[in-house]
Amino acid sequence: ANAAPTFYFGDGKKLTIFQMVQVWNVYTLKNDPFNKDIDARNDIYIRRGRIGVKGKLRKDISFKVWFAYDNLGKNEASASTGTANANSAHENREFYIWDALWTWHLDPEWANISIGYFRPQVGRESITTAFKVISFQKALTNFDVRKHIVGRGPGRETGINIGGLALNKQLNYNFGIFDTNSTKIVKDIGGKSDKVGDGKKWSPLFAVRVAWSFRDPEHKKYKMGYTQTYYGKRNGVTVGLNYTYQGETDVFKSNSLRGVDLLANFGPVDFVAEYDWLYRKLQTGESGTDTVWSVKAGYNIKLANGQIVRPSVMASKEDIDK
Amino acid sequence: ANAAPTFYFGDGKKLTIFQMVQVWNVYTLKNDPFNKDIDARNDIYIRRGRIGVKGKLRKDISFKVWFAYDNLGKNEASASTGTANANSAHENREFYIWDALWTWHLDPEWANISIGYFRPQVGRESITTAFKVISFQKALTNFDVRKHIVGRGPGRETGINIGGLALNKQLNYNFGIFDTNSTKIVKDIGGKSDKVGDGKKWSPLFAVRVAWSFRDPEHKKYKMGYTQTYYGKRNGVTVGLNYTYQGETDVFKSNSLRGVDLLANFGPVDFVAEYDWLYRKLQTGESGTDTVWSVKAGYNIKLANGQIVRPSVMASKEDIDK
Amino acid sequence: ANAAPTFYFGDGKKLTIFQMVQVWNVYTLKNDPFNKDIDARNDIYIRRGRIGVKGKLRKDISFKVWFAYDNLGKNEASASTGTANANSAHENREFYIWDALWTWHLDPEWANISIGYFRPQVGRESITTAFKVISFQKALTNFDVRKHIVGRGPGRETGINIGGLALNKQLNYNFGIFDTNSTKIVKDIGGKSDKVGDGKKWSPLFAVRVAWSFRDPEHKKYKMGYTQTYYGKRNGVTVGLNYTYQGETDVFKSNSLRGVDLLANFGPVDFVAEYDWLYRKLQTGESGTDTVWSVKAGYNIKLANGQIVRPSVMASKEDIDK
Repeated sequence: ANAAPTFYFGDGKKLTIFQMVQVWNVYTLKNDPFNKDIDARNDIYIRRGRIGVKGKLRKDISFKVWFAYDNLGKNEASASTGTANANSAHENREFYIWDALWTWHLDPEWANISIGYFRPQVGRESITTAFKVISFQKALTNFDVRKHIVGRGPGRETGINIGGLALNKQLNYNFGIFDTNSTKIVKDIGGKSDKVGDGKKWSPLFAVRVAWSFRDPEHKKYKMGYTQTYYGKRNGVTVGLNYTYQGETDVFKSNSLRGVDLLANFGPVDFVAEYDWLYRKLQTGESGTDTVWSVKAGYNIKLANGQIVRPSVMASKEDIDK
Repeated sequence: ANAAPTFYFGDGKKLTIFQMVQVWNVYTLKNDPFNKDIDARNDIYIRRGRIGVKGKLRKDISFKVWFAYDNLGKNEASASTGTANANSAHENREFYIWDALWTWHLDPEWANISIGYFRPQVGRESITTAFKVISFQKALTNFDVRKHIVGRGPGRETGINIGGLALNKQLNYNFGIFDTNSTKIVKDIGGKSDKVGDGKKWSPLFAVRVAWSFRDPEHKKYKMGYTQTYYGKRNGVTVGLNYTYQGETDVFKSNSLRGVDLLANFGPVDFVAEYDWLYRKLQTGESGTDTVWSVKAGYNIKLANGQIVRPSVMASKEDIDK
Repeated sequence: ANAAPTFYFGDGKKLTIFQMVQVWNVYTLKNDPFNKDIDARNDIYIRRGRIGVKGKLRKDISFKVWFAYDNLGKNEASASTGTANANSAHENREFYIWDALWTWHLDPEWANISIGYFRPQVGRESITTAFKVISFQKALTNFDVRKHIVGRGPGRETGINIGGLALNKQLNYNFGIFDTNSTKIVKDIGGKSDKVGDGKKWSPLFAVRVAWSFRDPEHKKYKMGYTQTYYGKRNGVTVGLNYTYQGETDVFKSNSLRGVDLLANFGPVDFVAEYDWLYRKLQTGESGTDTVWSVKAGYNIKLANGQIVRPSVMASKEDIDK
């Protein structure tokens, strides 16, 4: 469900208050392999709860600040992934920034500069919101990519990105520099908080994405959010190439991602695929490349009352390098 | 104080931004029995601070998402109950979800289905907001009932509820199923967080309430929030019967509540009473029934300038079974 | 950047949703004296992130409730001051109340009564938001004053204040009583949370400020927020005298501040200065007075396109009494 009323104030100013939610009901069988010896159980919880504001500060500056209260009410022994919402003092007490970014549309077509806390623009599954993927849950290409490049589940990092559209909106490019500080990427060597990274070595994370569309373009105007379905209204294909590189930190000598993804929307048919190579060379000298892929297909059936039902299938697999 | 501006967007969509606050000033005497040997002290603090949004996503779906920052600025040595607002790192840093629920008005009169994180609809004192009770603070019938059925002070749990009005709005019914996960109800047996329950045994919590009104109905349309005063405008009586049942968990063999409550509003007179039997059979085989009751009366005096002053009295007592 | 759309609802009711943000980019050299032996590093982070609502509940009651998500994405090993945003469970998870106050404009000119969680009105640098000072960062007169009187960085405390304007708006006065509960001011002696103060001794904090303006007044109507620049539109000088006193707590026998501050705005020139004496007599009998001062000057240059560039300089020093 989502509500997105928008207010207009003249001079290009506008403000939208928006919210999105996924309430899940997960039934866990008695003989769940990860939870032997426990009762079967039913778990109703707020898998994703989001609320925030977005809009324009003036004609050429847009912003988005939203918050999450995910996994609220989750039973810890339920078989679904994800950590139950709790801080160290109480259950159901976490409310935190999801994205906070400001974009200056220097040229609204080909030069949009964003700053703040947001997703490095690589990997279609990671940069598409869970509310716009065609599968029930996101694929492994979301979780593995995020863990590999920024080390945290929400996939956000602070940085700067420049992006735009070109060649009659057929080409979409993004180039970003990020300053990683997850302990999983840069290590914690004993500062004030052991939750925040402060390793001795430092290197920036570079992230590049180039996507070409054939026939209908993917975006009519530049944006950093994507969708996997146009509810039957797009006829086009988009191929994306993704690349990240980060040099030495206390965790690795170097770390990079190479990926290719594809989105095809032809009338009622939606098809999405992604393949990523996750390379890491450790401080010990060892190196390896994990791979992860996902394929999804959906078919939009328009009902007599205007609503759409879309059955879809997904396959996704990770292959860990020894 | 409260502010509740509402915006309308056509197609039945609307959005209200609302806030409520109670700033308390508590003076604690030097010879307070619970805090011997300390200075008398005055404590100004935000007892209840709430802010959120509610509205309609479309004509037949309403929602409410609000947040709390209770007990902010509370002195720990002040005699009033409640834990000072703090997380493990800092004081005054807790901001958390209070309710998050979405209601589908399948039939706005007799079939309203709600899902999310909200109060099981039992016990008039628990399901009436602190901003609409006629006493200064809520009665023990609020705190004891919540602790007994869901194990947490805010009294919220994730679940599904169906409710409605019938017989010319004289009958109000609710039936809900909830998935408890407080450690006080289901125990923590060592998952990721010791703040969230994950016991081996699992049983759902069922909650039922049926209320009959005589003369003026309590509600003109179905809602899950209640009031104890109509500021002199209602002439009617409502009697409610409440029942919950939960089977075996790691904490108990079974747990249930039976309760009866009464609201009478006759012109300037407001009268509220509740009696609850809290039954629990422990895993050790022992069982017992605590009881708790409350009675309140208020009288609305309309001043010349249209404002209302309402003196009120309350008595409330719990009786713990040995 | 800030966005402040305002909605009007009749009867004097209004509501503004506002946000403010400072994204900092801090480059830390390899031989930083505080972080020897680490790589040079670049740190992009949200130094100050704020979002909230303010407005009027009715013609004579205004309110402001806003929240902070400061230091999000900060690298712990970066040379800039401030603690990285994290709770004990996760990085980037703190979202907390900044101010929550309600003002009753009994007489909008000379008698405005505020209650809630807000800054004691002393010390121009402390009571001016970081978004309205003429320097890049606030001066030591902000940090030292706050630490001395309420013991916490945000400088907020719960209390009551009465203030107003008089003598044709040339005089601005404020008098407040606050109930301190920071462990740095009242100590923690072992209650539920070691983050919240609960010392045996108790004394209120009194805070008084009187400011005289010459030529253009500082404020056209009473407010508790200040600015250090009028972008070339004011011709006036304001001199403020500040005083606080708190009696015995578990930390000190008595604690007080005396301060004088000056704001001069003459066309394009902005000049601000403050000098504070921070007196404390410890429980051990020792006493001392630290001093802190700051001086800033800026010059507003109006560009052809209407924008303003303002170079400014600042000097600030603290002198700790032995």
